[in-house]
Amino acid sequence: MGSMKEESITMAHGFGGVAYHELVEEIFVPAFANDMLAPLGDAAVCKLNGHRLAFTTDSFVVQPRFFPGGDIGRLAVCGTVNDLAMSGAKPLYLSCGMIMQAGFSLSELKRIVASMAAAAGEAGVAIVTGDTKVVEQGSCDGIYINTAGVGMFEHEPLAVCPKAGDVIMVSGLLAAHGLAVLAARQSLDFEPPLKSDAAPLNGLAQSLLKAVPQLSCLRDPTRGGLAATLYEWAIASHSTIIIEEAALPLSKPVSAACALLGLDPLYIANEGVMAAALPSAQAEIALAALRRQPLGAKAAIIGRVGKALPQTPLILHTAAGGKRRIDLPQGDLLPRIC
Amino acid sequence: MGSMKEESITMAHGFGGVAYHELVEEIFVPAFANDMLAPLGDAAVCKLNGHRLAFTTDSFVVQPRFFPGGDIGRLAVCGTVNDLAMSGAKPLYLSCGMIMQAGFSLSELKRIVASMAAAAGEAGVAIVTGDTKVVEQGSCDGIYINTAGVGMFEHEPLAVCPKAGDVIMVSGLLAAHGLAVLAARQSLDFEPPLKSDAAPLNGLAQSLLKAVPQLSCLRDPTRGGLAATLYEWAIASHSTIIIEEAALPLSKPVSAACALLGLDPLYIANEGVMAAALPSAQAEIALAALRRQPLGAKAAIIGRVGKALPQTPLILHTAAGGKRRIDLPQGDLLPRIC
Repeated sequence: MGSMKEESITMAHGFGGVAYHELVEEIFVPAFANDMLAPLGDAAVCKLNGHRLAFTTDSFVVQPRFFPGGDIGRLAVCGTVNDLAMSGAKPLYLSCGMIMQAGFSLSELKRIVASMAAAAGEAGVAIVTGDTKVVEQGSCDGIYINTAGVGMFEHEPLAVCPKAGDVIMVSGLLAAHGLAVLAARQSLDFEPPLKSDAAPLNGLAQSLLKAVPQLSCLRDPTRGGLAATLYEWAIASHSTIIIEEAALPLSKPVSAACALLGLDPLYIANEGVMAAALPSAQAEIALAALRRQPLGAKAAIIGRVGKALPQTPLILHTAAGGKRRIDLPQGDLLPRIC
Repeated sequence: MGSMKEESITMAHGFGGVAYHELVEEIFVPAFANDMLAPLGDAAVCKLNGHRLAFTTDSFVVQPRFFPGGDIGRLAVCGTVNDLAMSGAKPLYLSCGMIMQAGFSLSELKRIVASMAAAAGEAGVAIVTGDTKVVEQGSCDGIYINTAGVGMFEHEPLAVCPKAGDVIMVSGLLAAHGLAVLAARQSLDFEPPLKSDAAPLNGLAQSLLKAVPQLSCLRDPTRGGLAATLYEWAIASHSTIIIEEAALPLSKPVSAACALLGLDPLYIANEGVMAAALPSAQAEIALAALRRQPLGAKAAIIGRVGKALPQTPLILHTAAGGKRRIDLPQGDLLPRIC
């Protein structure tokens, strides 16, 4: 893009949208140039002793640290497990790097560590190495957690984008995580309360891969929401992705909250949902495989990969029968949702 | 130890000394309980497809970010490369997780990224995956960097502690890094200036391993300095380690600065020196192998692993002919040296 105009980092660089992509493509990729980094998948595919391993990293700065359905610890484990799973790998080992400020409560740390251990148990991974740094009070907002993860491939690594003609499906109800964090931060009381969907997706991904080995790609639509994932997929596959508004699985509380707050669920982060692209001939098998799992009970086919339309990577067929071009998010409803 | 009295995190938890060990052993190890974490080596040894890999993580919060001899980027690459190398592994792949605050200078970010790329080139590793988070101004001190790393074993993984009768050597001049950061932070002008030793040690470690396959263990004495490394080795091997003050390799500027500031070089962090323990029969071969490499030119035999003396894991024979018990550091000369 060659178009960075800023002289300093802005909150927008953290939103997974336009500014974030510029940062990655203009600063990190040229400097670290290598074949494994270049595909910019959720996890890098690396060679080791003639085998391939998946390797990924993610830092977590979510605010507040505890919210309905999860906390920073659960998120830190699920996020990295999911990045590995989305590459088609079986997640095995996690690292845990913590930065805390002086004065951070030890009882809160214990709760976070217990939550990480529980999530690692759910996902069947081991946290095998760690590091702790302490900075002065006021030099970090409580605690920041980095998890890196390593996984192995039992199948070929998945592609980083769909093929022409693929159908697009999502594994569950959208937009729960971002709304839950927003509600917790702003002390908005919804009834029933909005709960984060944070969950390890590796079991679900493995079930789907087993049922449909022809699967093209998977992605967990976190920062930037489903819109960012599908937009990136369309650009990478030189196609236009068409999605059907009426097919998007949304819970009633999420629909109501989005309507009330004027938010588009397509841009809201998920932490326990995956998007999948696969040949249309396998669509029903895939849907059945997902729906057999509790995490995939609300899976739905939401769109397809079509021929590239000029300047329109992603298009929404609205419930009212119209068409709306969906862009990469420029900003976000709120920072620090993961 | 079962003895944590604090209710919150203190700066001492970040010093690599007593409080840090309590935190790790009372909170992290019990919660994450597994065989790979338990040895608490610089890197975990994990199984993958019938092979073993080394996996490690480290976060960097050094202040100032630029100092003579290095910067936070060089440190972030060398630190993780060295943790892998100290386990006997060949470092291969690194991840890079950055947390920046809004307003952080993009030109400074570019310098840091270029420095990381250069250090990765020196070490022969690839930075293959990354993540960037942005927090509000005031929620982080500029930039914090986490690097995790993966390596492979061409030999058996090294032990995490020495054997009885081993000699102890160090690969180079001690205490340069901690003093350089201290001088930069306090604007102390030494002539010649004190320069950090930050460097990738994997080449040196591989040379030594090739020359002396009987090598017991390696460790890079970072936080807590050589004292913390040798103290931990002594405890883990149920022995007393005896070191000779007159044998410690110290540059004249470092000796002069330590004398002036009243600091003990044994407690000062190194980032380009390794300690090695190996059978005394191989001592001369090891010394020659180290000294053939530029980074090992000042290598020296500094002590040995003796029978356990009661309550005295580590003892210094002073240059004046006395004996001094060396304890695990309780505090540190300054926080955030890495």
